[in-house]
Amino acid sequence: MPSLNDTLSQFKITPGRLVKTIHETSGKFGAKGKWGPLDSDTGVCRLALSDEDKGVRDWFVQELISLGCEVKIDEVGSIFGIYPGKDNSKPPTAMGSHLDTQPTGGRYDGILGVLSGLEVLRTFKDSGYVPNYPVALVDWMNEEGARFPMSIMASSVWAGNFSKEEVYNTKSISDLKPVSVKEELERIGYLGETPANYLQNKLAAHFEIHIEQGPILEEEEKEIGIVVGVQSYSWFNVYVRGKAQHTGTTPLNARNDALLSCAKMLVKANEIAHKHNGLCSIGTLRLEPSSINVIPEYVHFTLDCRHQLDEVREKIIEECKSEFQKIAEAPNGSSTKEAKVEFELIYTSPAVHFNEVCVSCVEQSAEELVGKNKVKKIISGAGHDSCSTSTRIPTSMIFIPCKDGVSHNFEEYSTPEQCENGYLTLLGAVVRYDQNRSE
Amino acid sequence: MPSLNDTLSQFKITPGRLVKTIHETSGKFGAKGKWGPLDSDTGVCRLALSDEDKGVRDWFVQELISLGCEVKIDEVGSIFGIYPGKDNSKPPTAMGSHLDTQPTGGRYDGILGVLSGLEVLRTFKDSGYVPNYPVALVDWMNEEGARFPMSIMASSVWAGNFSKEEVYNTKSISDLKPVSVKEELERIGYLGETPANYLQNKLAAHFEIHIEQGPILEEEEKEIGIVVGVQSYSWFNVYVRGKAQHTGTTPLNARNDALLSCAKMLVKANEIAHKHNGLCSIGTLRLEPSSINVIPEYVHFTLDCRHQLDEVREKIIEECKSEFQKIAEAPNGSSTKEAKVEFELIYTSPAVHFNEVCVSCVEQSAEELVGKNKVKKIISGAGHDSCSTSTRIPTSMIFIPCKDGVSHNFEEYSTPEQCENGYLTLLGAVVRYDQNRSE
Ligand SMILES: NC(=O)NCCC(=O)O
Ligand SMILES: NC(=O)NCCC(=O)O
Repeated sequence: MPSLNDTLSQFKITPGRLVKTIHETSGKFGAKGKWGPLDSDTGVCRLALSDEDKGVRDWFVQELISLGCEVKIDEVGSIFGIYPGKDNSKPPTAMGSHLDTQPTGGRYDGILGVLSGLEVLRTFKDSGYVPNYPVALVDWMNEEGARFPMSIMASSVWAGNFSKEEVYNTKSISDLKPVSVKEELERIGYLGETPANYLQNKLAAHFEIHIEQGPILEEEEKEIGIVVGVQSYSWFNVYVRGKAQHTGTTPLNARNDALLSCAKMLVKANEIAHKHNGLCSIGTLRLEPSSINVIPEYVHFTLDCRHQLDEVREKIIEECKSEFQKIAEAPNGSSTKEAKVEFELIYTSPAVHFNEVCVSCVEQSAEELVGKNKVKKIISGAGHDSCSTSTRIPTSMIFIPCKDGVSHNFEEYSTPEQCENGYLTLLGAVVRYDQNRSE
Repeated sequence: MPSLNDTLSQFKITPGRLVKTIHETSGKFGAKGKWGPLDSDTGVCRLALSDEDKGVRDWFVQELISLGCEVKIDEVGSIFGIYPGKDNSKPPTAMGSHLDTQPTGGRYDGILGVLSGLEVLRTFKDSGYVPNYPVALVDWMNEEGARFPMSIMASSVWAGNFSKEEVYNTKSISDLKPVSVKEELERIGYLGETPANYLQNKLAAHFEIHIEQGPILEEEEKEIGIVVGVQSYSWFNVYVRGKAQHTGTTPLNARNDALLSCAKMLVKANEIAHKHNGLCSIGTLRLEPSSINVIPEYVHFTLDCRHQLDEVREKIIEECKSEFQKIAEAPNGSSTKEAKVEFELIYTSPAVHFNEVCVSCVEQSAEELVGKNKVKKIISGAGHDSCSTSTRIPTSMIFIPCKDGVSHNFEEYSTPEQCENGYLTLLGAVVRYDQNRSE
């Protein structure tokens, strides 16, 4: 097997083009939240299947076509660009991530993954390089789960882990008038015909580069994270019921204040997470009737529980359930009969362990680029489309550091050098995997 | 001065008509929230200046006209019906309350006050009774403050305690697209021409009957509360700023979670209220960016603080301010430099002491009707339009019990007998005051 530097030496690399493309497309499709003096100092709000998402998709499809790719849109709106290889009878080696963002998203989360893949294909073309087998680049629909409340949506359908129909019917939570995934796919023209299924639309492997979204690589001064797995997480809807009463005339000990119970639950969830060295977070909360002088009767919030081990995540969830129940039953310290809190599981992403061959392609590629002491094996705190693909095909990921570990925030930032290192590691890993396949 | 029973004996009373009118109008204009088997077992959602409010206003104006009243609409949408007396050169003795409700309102709060006044005028007419001076019945615009976030709005303008322009520009908080009071007054046809001012649209006194909205009268088995004053209250907007970060990758000790800080504030506010024997309530809370996997960056909630004594209310507020500040500065137990919580006063309603002459008219009227041991002098926990009028003219209020002290809830309930007692006490008090004026 040739070393990475041998491999890279055959390519015509264009330094800076990747970062230029990141900033050009972020500026055009959803730029929001200016935080610094430069034009590129904004975040991106590009919710799945929004007008901004349609904009970047249309641009992306044109780029793929201009590189000579075959373009396929699947039934849940994921975009596949297939760059031809020598033997096109075999499924492509894939690179993939997502172009959608959080409402307070940055310019890197997801975007870096897709555009680094694009930079790999551009490099192939500029270098007249023909891989042994086709290489695919995928923009997976709705990875974030911000607008349609399930993360890693389309890649889960592709992997057969979630039903197409359920996805079609999922309603948006960020629109004043909720709309379904199917309606929005139709509206923006991305309800494709390619089966959203790993058996009918085959891929041989999946590589994804992503910002770490946490502080570890930066703190330990590492350049590349070799991602060996992903922590498990579960999302819940939690509903708390109290009693609407007058804030001016109802004595404290005669109240059943759903919001006060809920406040105690949030504080308790945080304590439970601390105790188990896991994470509990509440990202959304709505209440009714929502009047200054009416005690809240009903609160709905979402709970995000994470741990590297499935068993510990389960333990955290069990403790939350029983502690929340205690709080709901005693809204004023004294106990009431009726249970007033309800849990509804939205989604569980079990702990993931990536494929050894893919991990080693990334490892060798990274070590040759930045040196053994600048890489680190790491577990991802966040879920990624690679979690879905890993259930069906060899998969692994590459992380680069991001400033202060900040993500899902307009100010998310990685340096041009960090981005470039990530793309080159991806290039090396994919070429290496392609060569492995033919050996 | 003749005794109440002498006074009542000259009237042709129609038992049951008041309660029938309450249920007929509640059924037609905004019925919501069925809670029992009877048609009348619903609450009312009749937000100020909504279509439902317009409906009941149009009906109310027709009723006033059919009783021979002169009808005036003032510049902020309050409706005045003037029933003529013998000497119409003097300002009328007024009865007033409000026809708007909370989103989860009942059939009595406000409505009982206006419709009992209507029943008094109907009784005058049926009895061929002509008071010495005119008697007015007022439907004050937006007492609840649920849609436009200031309670006792129009009566405050009338009393010169709040500016008309500020009211016009107040935007709704319950509509998807906020609209202003002025726009809604115009839309429903109630932007009147009568000056909204106690100097140009004079009243001689103000009587208001209302449900207690609390548990005291019921618990002590009293039939009528002689309201001698109203506790003080202040409403605040509170803004908490944290940092949007990824819920999966941000360690607990690296977070600045605005919602977690806020949860600690709610628990603390409740403790402070307990300590001072006052009330602190949080009725509304909104957060951003509102995504399951993003730590909340920004929370806005409203704080309602009450106590019978202005000084103690001030003390509660000071403690909330300093404790909230401490929580915001140490979102994870460890302290940060930047202050991240901000208070904005919406409105203060100072403690109110009602007029002795008016209180004694109510007291004598109530005692003669239900007996000395069935009445109780009481301080109102909730604000009322009578708080505004009391700053300019002799004012007092009559309370009747309500089931379990429940109010601002669809299931709010007072028995037909309780309502009837309230109306007869009002009739006696107004007639007595009218006679007092001529003596
Ligand atoms: N990478 C990322 O933000 N994925 C969304 C799913 C998650 O919250 O882990
Ligand atoms: N009576 C009543 O609900 N008034 C609204 C103002 C308050 O909350 O006290």
